[in-house]
Amino acid sequence: MRYKYAYRLYRQARLHPRSTRMASSEGNKLWGGRFVGATDPIMEKFNASIHYDKRMWAADIQGSKAYVKALEKAGLVTKAEMEQILEGMDKIFEEWSKGVFDIKAGDEDIHTANERRLKELIGEAAGKLHTGRSRNDQVVTDMRLWLRDGISTVTGHLLQLINTMMERAASEIDILFPGYTHMQRAQPIRWSHWILSHAAALCRDAEKLEEMSRRVNILPLGSGAIAGNPFNIDRDLLRKELRFDAISLNSMDATSDRDFVAEFLFWASLCVTHLSKMAEDLIIYSTKEFAFVTLSDAYSTGSSLMPQKKNPDSLELIRSKAGRLFGRCSGFLMTLKGLPSTYNKDLQEDKEAMFDSYDTVCAVLQVATGVISTLKVNRTAMEAALSTDMLATDLAYYLVRKGMPFREAHGASGKAVHLAETKGIPLNQLTLEDLKTISLLFESDVSLVWNYTNSVEQYSAPGGTAESSVTAQIQHIRDWLKPRRS
Amino acid sequence: MRYKYAYRLYRQARLHPRSTRMASSEGNKLWGGRFVGATDPIMEKFNASIHYDKRMWAADIQGSKAYVKALEKAGLVTKAEMEQILEGMDKIFEEWSKGVFDIKAGDEDIHTANERRLKELIGEAAGKLHTGRSRNDQVVTDMRLWLRDGISTVTGHLLQLINTMMERAASEIDILFPGYTHMQRAQPIRWSHWILSHAAALCRDAEKLEEMSRRVNILPLGSGAIAGNPFNIDRDLLRKELRFDAISLNSMDATSDRDFVAEFLFWASLCVTHLSKMAEDLIIYSTKEFAFVTLSDAYSTGSSLMPQKKNPDSLELIRSKAGRLFGRCSGFLMTLKGLPSTYNKDLQEDKEAMFDSYDTVCAVLQVATGVISTLKVNRTAMEAALSTDMLATDLAYYLVRKGMPFREAHGASGKAVHLAETKGIPLNQLTLEDLKTISLLFESDVSLVWNYTNSVEQYSAPGGTAESSVTAQIQHIRDWLKPRRS
Amino acid sequence: MRYKYAYRLYRQARLHPRSTRMASSEGNKLWGGRFVGATDPIMEKFNASIHYDKRMWAADIQGSKAYVKALEKAGLVTKAEMEQILEGMDKIFEEWSKGVFDIKAGDEDIHTANERRLKELIGEAAGKLHTGRSRNDQVVTDMRLWLRDGISTVTGHLLQLINTMMERAASEIDILFPGYTHMQRAQPIRWSHWILSHAAALCRDAEKLEEMSRRVNILPLGSGAIAGNPFNIDRDLLRKELRFDAISLNSMDATSDRDFVAEFLFWASLCVTHLSKMAEDLIIYSTKEFAFVTLSDAYSTGSSLMPQKKNPDSLELIRSKAGRLFGRCSGFLMTLKGLPSTYNKDLQEDKEAMFDSYDTVCAVLQVATGVISTLKVNRTAMEAALSTDMLATDLAYYLVRKGMPFREAHGASGKAVHLAETKGIPLNQLTLEDLKTISLLFESDVSLVWNYTNSVEQYSAPGGTAESSVTAQIQHIRDWLKPRRS
Amino acid sequence: MRYKYAYRLYRQARLHPRSTRMASSEGNKLWGGRFVGATDPIMEKFNASIHYDKRMWAADIQGSKAYVKALEKAGLVTKAEMEQILEGMDKIFEEWSKGVFDIKAGDEDIHTANERRLKELIGEAAGKLHTGRSRNDQVVTDMRLWLRDGISTVTGHLLQLINTMMERAASEIDILFPGYTHMQRAQPIRWSHWILSHAAALCRDAEKLEEMSRRVNILPLGSGAIAGNPFNIDRDLLRKELRFDAISLNSMDATSDRDFVAEFLFWASLCVTHLSKMAEDLIIYSTKEFAFVTLSDAYSTGSSLMPQKKNPDSLELIRSKAGRLFGRCSGFLMTLKGLPSTYNKDLQEDKEAMFDSYDTVCAVLQVATGVISTLKVNRTAMEAALSTDMLATDLAYYLVRKGMPFREAHGASGKAVHLAETKGIPLNQLTLEDLKTISLLFESDVSLVWNYTNSVEQYSAPGGTAESSVTAQIQHIRDWLKPRRS
Repeated sequence: MRYKYAYRLYRQARLHPRSTRMASSEGNKLWGGRFVGATDPIMEKFNASIHYDKRMWAADIQGSKAYVKALEKAGLVTKAEMEQILEGMDKIFEEWSKGVFDIKAGDEDIHTANERRLKELIGEAAGKLHTGRSRNDQVVTDMRLWLRDGISTVTGHLLQLINTMMERAASEIDILFPGYTHMQRAQPIRWSHWILSHAAALCRDAEKLEEMSRRVNILPLGSGAIAGNPFNIDRDLLRKELRFDAISLNSMDATSDRDFVAEFLFWASLCVTHLSKMAEDLIIYSTKEFAFVTLSDAYSTGSSLMPQKKNPDSLELIRSKAGRLFGRCSGFLMTLKGLPSTYNKDLQEDKEAMFDSYDTVCAVLQVATGVISTLKVNRTAMEAALSTDMLATDLAYYLVRKGMPFREAHGASGKAVHLAETKGIPLNQLTLEDLKTISLLFESDVSLVWNYTNSVEQYSAPGGTAESSVTAQIQHIRDWLKPRRS
Repeated sequence: MRYKYAYRLYRQARLHPRSTRMASSEGNKLWGGRFVGATDPIMEKFNASIHYDKRMWAADIQGSKAYVKALEKAGLVTKAEMEQILEGMDKIFEEWSKGVFDIKAGDEDIHTANERRLKELIGEAAGKLHTGRSRNDQVVTDMRLWLRDGISTVTGHLLQLINTMMERAASEIDILFPGYTHMQRAQPIRWSHWILSHAAALCRDAEKLEEMSRRVNILPLGSGAIAGNPFNIDRDLLRKELRFDAISLNSMDATSDRDFVAEFLFWASLCVTHLSKMAEDLIIYSTKEFAFVTLSDAYSTGSSLMPQKKNPDSLELIRSKAGRLFGRCSGFLMTLKGLPSTYNKDLQEDKEAMFDSYDTVCAVLQVATGVISTLKVNRTAMEAALSTDMLATDLAYYLVRKGMPFREAHGASGKAVHLAETKGIPLNQLTLEDLKTISLLFESDVSLVWNYTNSVEQYSAPGGTAESSVTAQIQHIRDWLKPRRS
Repeated sequence: MRYKYAYRLYRQARLHPRSTRMASSEGNKLWGGRFVGATDPIMEKFNASIHYDKRMWAADIQGSKAYVKALEKAGLVTKAEMEQILEGMDKIFEEWSKGVFDIKAGDEDIHTANERRLKELIGEAAGKLHTGRSRNDQVVTDMRLWLRDGISTVTGHLLQLINTMMERAASEIDILFPGYTHMQRAQPIRWSHWILSHAAALCRDAEKLEEMSRRVNILPLGSGAIAGNPFNIDRDLLRKELRFDAISLNSMDATSDRDFVAEFLFWASLCVTHLSKMAEDLIIYSTKEFAFVTLSDAYSTGSSLMPQKKNPDSLELIRSKAGRLFGRCSGFLMTLKGLPSTYNKDLQEDKEAMFDSYDTVCAVLQVATGVISTLKVNRTAMEAALSTDMLATDLAYYLVRKGMPFREAHGASGKAVHLAETKGIPLNQLTLEDLKTISLLFESDVSLVWNYTNSVEQYSAPGGTAESSVTAQIQHIRDWLKPRRS
Repeated sequence: MRYKYAYRLYRQARLHPRSTRMASSEGNKLWGGRFVGATDPIMEKFNASIHYDKRMWAADIQGSKAYVKALEKAGLVTKAEMEQILEGMDKIFEEWSKGVFDIKAGDEDIHTANERRLKELIGEAAGKLHTGRSRNDQVVTDMRLWLRDGISTVTGHLLQLINTMMERAASEIDILFPGYTHMQRAQPIRWSHWILSHAAALCRDAEKLEEMSRRVNILPLGSGAIAGNPFNIDRDLLRKELRFDAISLNSMDATSDRDFVAEFLFWASLCVTHLSKMAEDLIIYSTKEFAFVTLSDAYSTGSSLMPQKKNPDSLELIRSKAGRLFGRCSGFLMTLKGLPSTYNKDLQEDKEAMFDSYDTVCAVLQVATGVISTLKVNRTAMEAALSTDMLATDLAYYLVRKGMPFREAHGASGKAVHLAETKGIPLNQLTLEDLKTISLLFESDVSLVWNYTNSVEQYSAPGGTAESSVTAQIQHIRDWLKPRRS
């Protein structure tokens, strides 16, 4: 009975999920004075961004503190007013830091909220802070400050992952296992070579992040809504205060340019696509059939039904996030497409995409570091998986070294493979007579071909899987990391 | 000073946002008994879904209640145990309804949480509920139940919007204004014809939603983890209890099939793309230059800088959401692509995408209804925008009716337009002599061409903009709505 | 020397790839008579669609033949003119069929080309064909006719694939192998059960295609450019002539509605995502490590370097096409987003996306059919991969059947798995004493658990992997196919 | 009758479009010697890439010429063999240049085709060219060479567009018109300021292209299939021969890394998204209602139905291509997602995406240049669109300058706007008495506010719309262009 009643309540809430009225929303909306109509609570909620853009509270305060200094220099606030505003802002900072800042109905975004609070704290002088500024230049300044910090955090996680991979590659350089192409056994390689192949992609990602960082670090403040700043504000002072590298070129572009967001979203997609590739390899390597690696329990989960299961959830989640991230990129690009120039409210989609991508890429990088640093490698299984058919290329090279053109040698080796398959024996069990039916160049020294270490040591050209080449790769990454992690 | 300290705290939180330890996570993990290693708090958070999948609490309870009835029928629980479990579940329902359900550390998802609570409430018998069930069939059953309800809510909002549009079209049928193609004035049309062109697309959306709804409404419960149910559970009983239309065909497919999610995401994208088209029109029609419509204050906002501004934020947000929604669809499809079969943890991306798309489409539909029902139409401006060059096609038709092949008539009318432009006069100010230099078929009755009402009334074939055709369209939609809204 | 000269030529062509002038483009552009400026050859090429839309030549002719009949009925052409036009159109059809239709400079699209040719063949009467018609309703009529045929072809390929899978499942029903979740061995299943899991998804696809087909099959002709048809053309006659199911509701919507294209693109994406899932499984199953299946040589390729390689290129291509197809969908949706209503030239992106998706999905379905019908199954390897830890759930069920609640039984079975791992022995080698340390419910009949056939035969509920359930699935698909393939 | 027959033929071709047998495909497949089964013509076509990758013929020849020099240095071919191969390659280059290279059945890709032809020309020595090389390192070398050239061409088009915009901005600096935000009139700005806002985005694009170019310009040759090069080939010699900046770090990464393609696709998407923004503005500005600009006839088209129409097709196509390009990016990213490492055939999707994006972006840039350089600006209409409500911010600033805090001034100005609206008069027609009812700070000098030139000249801070600021922007771009275009 009680259940029925509860269910009815539930149904109501389900059918009208958004009609729960927000508290009255009059009050301090920034455009005050003009609107006479009532508002629609669903529209208010649709319009509001405070529930996510509050994450930028610190950047918003930073920006306002710099701006008031510029206002003071321009003579638009007195020194005393400036001090008042700076102190008010510090107080607000403290409230946010301690988690005691109180968001009120009507605080539609972080800018409104902070300024509303400032007015409560210091009174009328607060009304001078926004002079010549628009939310258009304010919000994008906040975003650039926030993302600059964000990129620095992401870079830290990324370098830590690369370092972990590099160290692991260094310590396990003597393990051989099959290299695959098309998921078919191709040639013997070093396990470290595999690790470094993924690290190499991440190094590219780190370098791109550095370049992107420079593009993020440009000051839009002082662009107003569209036309610029009418009080000849000192934009270079703003730049220095906020530690930006440069000043935006054109005010119309500056207030609506979200390239830095789009770039970050794409960067995150591609970076995690690299990790999805590594995750895919490891998921396959951790099957019972391959059994090359065993995930730490900390990065696995069990089954609610099957007691023997140990599932590589961490890796599957990493793989899945490549999709999520590209979805964010895709959604934002579609939002941008076809917009007219300058600020349009559509741009409000920028922040959730940026925050979610940041959170996701941070989690993925840290989990990947955890996975890589705790993974157990099953050397025996790896080496047992090497099979002599993987030396068929070496057999061809044997003939090349005896003077046969490669194309012909490739054909001859292919015939040997086919012969061995027909006979149902491994390639290295073909007798010299068998081989001589294919080419008279085969001699008894062909037996030297059947050695996996000999095979990998051939690949000593830069980038190859010989020990010297792999060591050189490790050294390269070590040197590359040094200035970046210090 | 205090500021500096606060800032340091802030930086720490910023750099290590996820390292805030969750409370100890031992305890009731479903796979109990086997794992011996420790866990990584970042991995735990990465893995957990409770913070969003708790939205499905009611569906989860519904599913479990049905399942225990089937267990009782199969003899796996006694009648008394069944009663205990049903009562426990009702109690949990009540707790959720009242907002007092307490999520504990270790409740990684809604299924774990509800079962953990059941055990607290009724003891050991709770341990029988999951017999023969897996989270794999449980979660997808919950999702289908949830989305079935969701689609019903969405449909309600959608039909309300269509109804609003239809009523508005009916009451403003006598207003003419320019029809545009390529954003260039094309031919005079009825304002109602424009409204109905958007309503027509939404009717298609509603019909597709009905079809999709049937595909959602299929029972996966009884599929276990992969192989099916080993206790010969009565799946038809489950189907009836949960009011599904049919039973899934194959257990491996049933547990990993997320087509219904993908379809819903795409549906939402396309539906809101239709509304982005309408929004784009209205944004342009509400510029000062067009001035055809005025948005209600409730769906506009002002500027923090420019006091005269009234911005169509509601429309811009609608337009932007087409991107957001397609991003969700895009992300999920990418997550699905290339997965091996059966359940993989990657599928966990399904729920946030589904919830967010549902919330977004509900908000968009309601806001659109608000916009359309409160929009002011500026009839004077609309009619003033009709210009005689828009009757150039009619001028060609005049010649066609005199026997000239259309291609030739089109060329002749083009020459008339060019002549009028050269003379700098409107098309209808060309004298009969002027026209006769182009074709001798022109006679004094050409003056009847220059009438906008005459023009629109020509288009009386079905689907056209003549009053009779528009009225027929309205009637069609009215009849179509009747069975759906009652 | 010669080389240097050739290289210079090459560089020129490379740097100015598009400046190769098209032949003079004056002549029969449809809008004749007005434009006075010159054109830009790059713009002409950018604008032209004839190089791809010529694929719709037959649909264009079909549409024009129907239209002239309606014109005759409306008195706009005489019976004799109609006959002339019909014969001219048949002649053009023949030219296209034989590959002798000559595209001329100035034929910017298929509609222009066919009408230009008609005029050459029959003279002035050709100029009457376009009366009251616009390219806006003409092009979308052509597309709907073309895609209706296309869907019928796609359906044929799809049903053939499903049939192949069903027959294979029927004939190999007695082969057992490991079912995987998270790519970890989960429970023993029938190989046929795996095949049918993929077929089940394809059946859904076929049903959706049927529904979509109805939405494609709607007549837009008679909508003109935007306002409708001014000569009261008999649209029902057009509908019957062209075998459409219904008439579009609103002319503005009808001319710009491309939902049917978007839907088809998404359908193709999701269908091939299903096949990418199957391909992923098979790629893994055809590794040396799994060795469950061997692809026919016809669907494999070798390596230019490694003679022993046999790569599953067909499967990799299938997997990759899921991306390509979704890219088409994604691109087209983005093109649609934010457009204003009615026809805008942006819509020209519709055709290449539609054609390429059609070609791709046709090729994928046929190649998949080839792969499935020629695949060799390695039963020995499959059965050898079954391991007793996969029966851990059965061990838990053993205890459940003895009265232990499932949660407890799951924990007990987990302990047994752990004990066996610790001892380094398979699960079924634990002695009864070992098991009794875990639960006293274990008795000597526990030995019956260790039988894979017994295991699968438990899953006899609908959808499960027991022989009877799998047979029922096969019968279901057979019955479902019958009316569709006859 | 003839028609019926033709139709039957047509239907057959339509239903079996791909069953047209290719000529026998035996012969020179690179993996020779092993395969014994027959092939499927649909699979052959599905697998082949020659019909598009032949575009890289020159890069393929370049790469092979460099490789044979390295082989000679390594002692794997004699000097005479090298000369033979080089001459053969020059001959093949010439054949391609002249358009007389004959593709034969069995030439599945450009690499096979060129090597097959080489063998025809020079005989057995041709078989030595591929020694130690794999198609895996060959194809990616070709792509990098091709795209390096492609980027240089794209850069040229892009800089030409920027230059055109900059020059136009310089010559029309004295034209004022409304700046819009949210498509609502915001503040008066210079027309040049608008042009430069788009140019600024394109400058960013050009800089990113430069960075990307460095990442493209890395040598993968010498990486073999996966393990590296076994003949200690001199990779630095290869690098110099092919003018690459650096050598790839790791052979497994080098052969499967397609980041440079993904980056280019995303770059093209974002660049054309910028142009879609400009196109959207211009489409709106060229409506009859705005009438700010008139497109040249060369970039417009007419209507097949409406003689008066002049449609901005060029702009609509530009806008649409943003979707197409992002579709390519989206599709390719989805293809990459979840792939295992090293070369998988899925990567074959890289080339069509790259070529199509290159062609599209080249066409878009050139058409945009044409549009911008031929656009007519209607200064009178632009200036007539300025209205005094756009000076409401200036009215607020008037009060700010009199000492009122901005927030209060913004409210006061809002009241003035409201008062003027209520009275039905323009803002500047409010009397001083009217204004004094709002604030006593208003004095007779308020009349100076009502001047558009005064208004724009306030915005003299860097990036603003004052003449000095706009001039500085122009100078900045001019200086930026100089080193890049010389």
